[in-house]
Amino acid sequence: MSTTPERVTVIGLGNLGRALAETFLHHGHPTTVWNRDAAKAEALVAAGATAEATAAEAISAGDLVIVALLDSTVSRQVLAGAADAVAGRALVNVTSGGPEDARELAAWAAEQGADYLHGAVYAVPQTIGTTESSISYSGSESVHQRWQTRLDLLGKGTFLGTDAGLASGYDVAILAGMYGMIGGFLHATAMAAAAGVRATELTPMLLSWLADSFPALSTFAEEIDSGGYTGGESSLAMNQAGLATIIRASQELDVPAGTLLPLKDLIDRQIAAGHAAASLSRAVESFRSAA
Amino acid sequence: MSTTPERVTVIGLGNLGRALAETFLHHGHPTTVWNRDAAKAEALVAAGATAEATAAEAISAGDLVIVALLDSTVSRQVLAGAADAVAGRALVNVTSGGPEDARELAAWAAEQGADYLHGAVYAVPQTIGTTESSISYSGSESVHQRWQTRLDLLGKGTFLGTDAGLASGYDVAILAGMYGMIGGFLHATAMAAAAGVRATELTPMLLSWLADSFPALSTFAEEIDSGGYTGGESSLAMNQAGLATIIRASQELDVPAGTLLPLKDLIDRQIAAGHAAASLSRAVESFRSAA
Repeated sequence: MSTTPERVTVIGLGNLGRALAETFLHHGHPTTVWNRDAAKAEALVAAGATAEATAAEAISAGDLVIVALLDSTVSRQVLAGAADAVAGRALVNVTSGGPEDARELAAWAAEQGADYLHGAVYAVPQTIGTTESSISYSGSESVHQRWQTRLDLLGKGTFLGTDAGLASGYDVAILAGMYGMIGGFLHATAMAAAAGVRATELTPMLLSWLADSFPALSTFAEEIDSGGYTGGESSLAMNQAGLATIIRASQELDVPAGTLLPLKDLIDRQIAAGHAAASLSRAVESFRSAA
Repeated sequence: MSTTPERVTVIGLGNLGRALAETFLHHGHPTTVWNRDAAKAEALVAAGATAEATAAEAISAGDLVIVALLDSTVSRQVLAGAADAVAGRALVNVTSGGPEDARELAAWAAEQGADYLHGAVYAVPQTIGTTESSISYSGSESVHQRWQTRLDLLGKGTFLGTDAGLASGYDVAILAGMYGMIGGFLHATAMAAAAGVRATELTPMLLSWLADSFPALSTFAEEIDSGGYTGGESSLAMNQAGLATIIRASQELDVPAGTLLPLKDLIDRQIAAGHAAASLSRAVESFRSAA
């Protein structure tokens, strides 16, 4: 290990970038920051950070460069404008985006002679630097190994593989699943209210039922990977009927049932294709046939 | 307690009704059954049940009458056709339906001189009679108390209150929430597959993240009941941006993002009404304004 202090740079000072820079400063790392709107750097400079006028200067000042920008379009623009500075740097990009964005940036970074690691942050900015934060990484394994101790200051780290798109692939899929659950939760509380049940009365029973349903989702995952869909405990036909009951009940309660219609459509299309007796998990095939 | 054997009747012999009748027979209760298609009674008769030719005769033969029919329309029809037989009976209706259906049937039963308890079954038929089955009841508290020991043979029972619609109200809301989670799960596995991640690789991380999100849903429930929506940790604006990233990533992976569009619409409408800084939970108000 070098005895030279390890210099860290944070590019982008939104809520996430500021939290990352604060964590490095808190642990005594010389920290350079850059943000398009320089005013967001002021509090960090007061806390000991160095602000640079350009992204290229900030990148040149760091051995480890964390990129935390608004979205993948902005991170492409900012990095392209600092292309001369990235050679030899370890770039860790935690900007939200899809797996293709991460793969494109990894290929671009390799052309510039930089090492690229992509990170997906599972935390709100307030929990960065605590045990409540976790970050999945994929891309350059050597960057992850070399900087693991520093990265672990930000949150519990997991390395998923050398395909730079993996971390984002998991991330966007997990968030799609979470938003599905949130949409269902909001619909559930709206129906409960219309039926005379408070959200705080419903929620403990709802969460208990959702947790009890996790093993069924694990079974669905096995069916999806095998393509067999033979688990008959919860068939498409049974769920078509069950969902129709819920949609009708929602309408009778004057609660629009729109959140359930996309799932109804996925199920209906598999049944129309002759798979009424197959497992509910077969509804995933409707995503493929529609693509 | 009476020393006369307690006679149980099960009206409707679909998968659920058959499982209920089998459980009572297994525990030695004289059990009478009726089904429109009498063939479904044959195996139960072979196991010791008595089959009657009409619902009225079957209802007359039972002290406790369990109704497990296809839907609330069918249960209204069957009970109306046996109106002369229900006076003095304890009717426990576990047919799926909305809270208004249950309230209407409870009012009708009261006019006939019957006691009405509605049940919502949280089980697949295979688990009826085991500790994996639970049933929520609402309506006649005296029926629940008088028959609790027998009803607990079917699954762990909970009495929610004397409003006959409560059990169905919780039930349809909880199932709406569950179907939201399932829709999100299927979308998540479709996105993961397109990004090169197997469903069985994704699911443990997804379920862990969903469970980690439960406390946020409990906070949302408090915000919804108070109408304050002041929790700023996860604002509508932040989630509008986050959801846009996921929808775009899904489209880039050639996975239709339809399951996310209803939630996007709920969020967009609250932001259009000037509530960008409010908690994500405020999206529930869009159900009300659309109704």
